[in-house]
Parts: sequence; structure tokens; C-alpha cells
Amino acid sequence: MALIVQKFGGTSVGSVERIRGVAARVLDTVAQGHRVAVVTSAMSGETNRLVALAHDIDPLPFSREYDLILSAGEQVAVGLLALAINAEARKRGLVPEGGTKARGYLGHQVGIHTDNGYSKARIREIDTKLLFSELDAGIVPVVAGFQGVDDSNSITTLGRGGSDTSAVALAAALRADDCEIYTDVDGVYTTDPRLCPKARKIERISYEEMMELASLGAKVLQIRSVELAAKFRVPLHVISSFSNTPGTRVVHREELGMSMEQVDVSGVAADNNQVKYHLRGLPNRPGVAAMVFGALTRESIVVDVIVQDMPVSGMASLSFTVGEAEALRTQTALERLKAEAFREMEIQSDKSLAKVSIVGVGMQHHPGVAARMFQILGEQNIDIRLISTSEIKVSCLVAADQMKLAVESLHRGFGLDRLD
Amino acid sequence: MALIVQKFGGTSVGSVERIRGVAARVLDTVAQGHRVAVVTSAMSGETNRLVALAHDIDPLPFSREYDLILSAGEQVAVGLLALAINAEARKRGLVPEGGTKARGYLGHQVGIHTDNGYSKARIREIDTKLLFSELDAGIVPVVAGFQGVDDSNSITTLGRGGSDTSAVALAAALRADDCEIYTDVDGVYTTDPRLCPKARKIERISYEEMMELASLGAKVLQIRSVELAAKFRVPLHVISSFSNTPGTRVVHREELGMSMEQVDVSGVAADNNQVKYHLRGLPNRPGVAAMVFGALTRESIVVDVIVQDMPVSGMASLSFTVGEAEALRTQTALERLKAEAFREMEIQSDKSLAKVSIVGVGMQHHPGVAARMFQILGEQNIDIRLISTSEIKVSCLVAADQMKLAVESLHRGFGLDRLD
Repeated sequence: MALIVQKFGGTSVGSVERIRGVAARVLDTVAQGHRVAVVTSAMSGETNRLVALAHDIDPLPFSREYDLILSAGEQVAVGLLALAINAEARKRGLVPEGGTKARGYLGHQVGIHTDNGYSKARIREIDTKLLFSELDAGIVPVVAGFQGVDDSNSITTLGRGGSDTSAVALAAALRADDCEIYTDVDGVYTTDPRLCPKARKIERISYEEMMELASLGAKVLQIRSVELAAKFRVPLHVISSFSNTPGTRVVHREELGMSMEQVDVSGVAADNNQVKYHLRGLPNRPGVAAMVFGALTRESIVVDVIVQDMPVSGMASLSFTVGEAEALRTQTALERLKAEAFREMEIQSDKSLAKVSIVGVGMQHHPGVAARMFQILGEQNIDIRLISTSEIKVSCLVAADQMKLAVESLHRGFGLDRLD
Repeated sequence: MALIVQKFGGTSVGSVERIRGVAARVLDTVAQGHRVAVVTSAMSGETNRLVALAHDIDPLPFSREYDLILSAGEQVAVGLLALAINAEARKRGLVPEGGTKARGYLGHQVGIHTDNGYSKARIREIDTKLLFSELDAGIVPVVAGFQGVDDSNSITTLGRGGSDTSAVALAAALRADDCEIYTDVDGVYTTDPRLCPKARKIERISYEEMMELASLGAKVLQIRSVELAAKFRVPLHVISSFSNTPGTRVVHREELGMSMEQVDVSGVAADNNQVKYHLRGLPNRPGVAAMVFGALTRESIVVDVIVQDMPVSGMASLSFTVGEAEALRTQTALERLKAEAFREMEIQSDKSLAKVSIVGVGMQHHPGVAARMFQILGEQNIDIRLISTSEIKVSCLVAADQMKLAVESLHRGFGLDRLD
């Protein structure tokens, strides 16, 4: 008998019909002899509706009140899902008329304590006493994802996709045997199937690879939740709530076993809409980069790949990328910086770029992987504008209109193509 | 400087535009030097949407989970209204950018303790410590109506219209100087203006009269809230949130003063869709009425006027009315009762009836008021099917198609017509 945390995303509970399907799935798991705790997101569309209302009132609504509003979406989903589990349990004869098989819980009711960083709060601690007493009594606790409570008893939310984090934190606190993340795709793929029809579902992947893929744009799991799962060694299982095929297991690197050792690259990620900035004529002294990125951070601009070039004739230069949506604000911030501090700085930008990345724990032991990537792209006459590497990832900036070609050739070149 | 509780109904906060209007009104009151605590309902339509979702999942959803779902509506309204007050306060220069003038509070956060009668919970106690500390700090607490928390820390709701009750309970707990109920009509009228164009707005009315009017179908205030206001002597003020005309004050009988002493009748209430049942041939012994009405109560049928006739030749007879919507269930329940207990009972029903009532504390000292009512109706050839009286009310059952005529002639006959 295992203790399983099952998390259902917004599309999984997007209608009354689907909520009924989720209820049946939860009780199927219970019927297999497991203890189950459920975490749910808001019904799809609901959080967007609430966000729009808040923004209509105040264009910058981020505050304690904003979180109070947004948390209502999960509250409704939790109540509906608990109702549905009880109705299904009655139908199956598990409880008498009026009996209880599930109870809905809000973040504060099960003691999901967070800091007070409204709309991006971080979980500090979860009380497990009530949850264990419910599980011991044969009750399925249905817990609201995305929300918690701070020290002043105000409701907090964890930021977009925060329900994944709620589920992993709950699984860690309960020392669950498995944390199942139900979503609208049936697992993590070697690359985006819309870009490359030969994409394969990955059976097992390490936390580190999953984190790189999540940060590179694979939207299956929120990166914070993967980090948290890695930290507490929570076994994750990404599954579709609309099919019964096995999904992708996210596990500790050592658990991948021998079979994976032979694979250099686990996946190819792609993200278009990148703009590259190249700054020249900066003074070559310490603290310059901090001033540049400090100016961008103050405007809440998220900078992605950063490359510091070798200084040429006493002047330094820097390259970095931002999302296309942030290009205008970046340009403004840089021009202000030029006027205020670096009068000789030249600002060059290069739009319509895409970032193509290969990810794999295997590449650590195979130093030729990056070179192989450049060779594959070169063979296709794809020009590389910027390169950035981490321990288990190599990213190349290429022209956006070459992204699909780059992904397909890397996918084939690293032996990831589906065999059919 | 007074302490005022302002309660806004669903239509008053029915859109972003209206929420902004409410925020301005709250701050206008603050600008007059008053301390203000706000209670709000859910945006109009929202509770119905949540009810429909819950009923879609489970036709009989009434439970802890049902209340969890329904309470989300007020939660959103509270957050939006607090956001709007803060935005308006910034615009007026009352607080700096990012400053706080209002904070939203859920029932459990301000300690609105109730019993655990889900979907019809009763308030037991309200903690005032946090609310007073907010008011003392110049903050407007915006409190969710309709909801509370029970001893097991589960969310409860107070039943339809419960936000009025929340507001009155809050005003009582805070010993507020005034409890303003903002709604979509501009006060309590001598009768329904749609039935009688000569209807006048009542300036002042007693709790008792308001209770009778509320129970007779005037939908301005929930009857429980008037009861509570009377018990704790909370001064109520019913006002339109869409105009600036003075509304109706609901006060203690003694406070009505001399001017009202001359008035026998304060208002005429009307309610069509009544069905009268007349049961004959019942045994004339104690407990028979209890069996009849017990059978109806078990089917959750609300019985209105009840008249027990004098026994004739050893057999008793009973008359009562129910709403037309409950006629079918009433008939079924009575036929079962006949088969099981009272084989000689005859069931007669009289459909399409209307109940017309006159209400006024003055009639206690003027015993001729009922007779005058019968005379006025008689002059119009209106046949009275059933009469029922209380200390300050006389109700007559008449044919539904004569209801309008009855209301108009009573309104004129008792000197209530608008002078124009």
C-alpha cells in the first residue's frame, strides 16, 4: 500500500464531466489499496478570468488582495472535486448516502505556510497532522494548489503553475511514495512534437534534465516544482489525465540506471521570440556587468543567455538575450544607462532569433557533445549567433526561421528519432 | 465621528464599474470623518453560477463542500473591492503609491464563528479585536458576507441573502452607530410600486413592521437580518447604491416618535402564487395537526397561513396555504397521509390565490383596522378566502386576479397613496 499524491491541472478539471472523470480515477487508485491525497488547480480559464477582473480594477494589482482574489479559483475546484468523489463513492457503494469519502481543504486549512511574497510566495512548511489523520480515516483530502497562508493569516499564491509546487511540497511533507502530475499531455517528449513529428515520449528522465527542459520552454512542469522534487527526492510521474498510457518518470540521476548512460542527449528544446543584444564600448573594469544587469533587473526584465566577450583594446563587450516581448523596455533601459553612465556604449540588437538547446546528463562524460551539435547545425548551414553551455545543456541562438530545421536535425543527429 | 457598517449587495458590486462606484462611496463616507467597515455580497450572478456547478456534480450537494464552493463568490468580491478602494485612495492622494487604505477579509480571518449547519449556518460570535485594530489604524476592513467558520475550521455559509445578516451581526459586534444596507432599490415602499404606482417610500419603519413585510415578500432585506438588528438594536438604513436619495431607516418602535402614532398601517404586502388546502374529516383529538404538518415538514414544504376551524360533528378541519411551486409535492404528501393515517380525510385545494396583507404597529391600538380592511375589500367585491392575523399584521387570501385591485384599494383606503 503506497501513499500517492495526485495533482490535476486546470484542463483536467476543466468541466463538470472532466471533474467526474478525475473523481473516478482517484477512486480507482484507492481501490488498488493506496492512500491518496489530491491537489488540484483551478478549472481552466478561471484564473485568467480572475486576473482580468483584478487588472480591470487596478492595472498593477499585485498585493495581498490580488492573492485573495486569485485563490478563489482553486477553492471552487477543490469543493467540486470533493463533491464529485463523494458522489462517485456513493455510486460505488463505498460510503452510505450522505457519507464522506473526500474533503476539500484550502491552503490555510491544512497549514501550507508560506512567506508573504504575494503572487510569488514560497512554501516554508506544511503541517501534516490533519492530512495524516484524514488519510488514516480513509478520507481523500483534496487540497487547493497554488495557495498558502502567511504569518499574518493572509492568503498567498505561489505564482503561475504553482499547483505543481504545491503537489511536490505536499508529497515531500507526507513522504509520499509517488507524486503523479496529471496534465493534458501524456508525458515529457524528446522535443516539441509540433516542431518535430519524430519526437518520442521519454520514459525516465533525471530531475536535472527536467529542470533544464522546463527552463528552456517545455511547459509540462513548473521548474520550481522540479527543483523542489529534486531537493526532497520526490518521485514525479507526469501522466495524461485523458489516457491510460504510462507517462514520464522524473527520478534521481542514479536511478536512471545503466541503460541511460549510453544516451548523451535526452531532449532538444526550442524557444523562438528571442532578441539578442550586443553591447560594445563598455569600460573594462569590475562592476560594469553588475550595473548593466542591475539596470535591467530594476525594470523586471528577465535576461536569458549572457556572454561576456574578451576585452578588445581596453573596452569590454557583453551579449545577452531577452524575450521579444521585453525588447522595447530593454532598449529604453539600455539607452538610459548609456546616457547616465556609459556614454561610449554601442547598443546592437538582433531580432527574430530562436534558442535551440540539447539537454542530457550523459553529456558530462562526453566532452564531444557540444562540438557534435555545432557540426550538425553547420551541416545544415545554420548560423550560430551565440552559444551558452551548462553542465548538462548546450544552447545555440539561431535565426528563428531555421529553428524547426535545427530541432529536426539535432533530434535525428543525436539518435532521438522515433523508430517507426 | 461615527462607526458605520456599509453592506453592498450583488447588483451594487455587479461589475468593475460598479465596484469602482462603491469604492468612491466608501471613501466619501471616510472623508466625512467616519470609520467604515464594509460587508459585500458576491458579484450578481456569481453565486448562481457556483450553485449550478455544484448541482451539476451532485443534485443534492448540500454539505461542507457546497459551502466551500459558494463562499468563493464573496471572496472574489472582497478582494476586488479592497483593490478598488486602494486604487481610489491613491488617486485621491490619501495613501502613497503602493499604500493600503483597505484590506479584504474572509469570514474565518475576522473570526465570524458559526455553528456547522452548512448552507444555513447561524452566527455565534464575531471577534472584534482585529477589526478594531484595523479601524484604529485608519484601514477600511472589507469583510466577506454570507460566510463564516465553524469549530472544525470549515467554511460555512449563512443561506441566501446571508450577507445582510453578516452586516447586521458585524454592526452589532462593533456597536456600530449605523448599518447601511446598499441595494438596487432606494428604500422600503408602502407597497410594491409595480402593483400600485401610488406607492410611497417609507422614511422610517419599525423592526417589527419590517420583519412582517420581509416575511410577506418584500425582498429588500432578509428577515433574519431584521430579527438580528431588532435583537441588538442595530439601526438599519436601506439605501440605493445607484442614487443619493435618503433611504428607509429601520428603527426601534419607540424611536418612531409621535408622528407615526397616527398611522394605523405602514405598508401593504402582496404575494401571489398561493394555493390553499382545506382538509376536512380529521379526527378531533390532540396531535392531529402535528401529524399533518410533520408530514409536510419531512418533505421540506414550507407552510404559510394556517387556520384550524371549529370541529363540526366530532370531526376537525384545517386550512393552510403553500407556494404554488410546492403544490404537487403537498398533494402527494397529503394523499400518502390519507392512506396511512386519516382515511376519512377530504383534501380540497384552491389554486391561483394571492395573499394581501396590511402591516403596521399602529393597528395594535386600533382594533378596528382588520374590520376596515374587510370593508375596503368588500366594497370592491373582493371575496376573502382565508384570514390570518398577527399583532401587527392582517393577511387575507383573495383571488390572484383581484390582487392588484386589493392592493390599490387598501393602499388608498389606509391613506398611504403618494400625494401628487
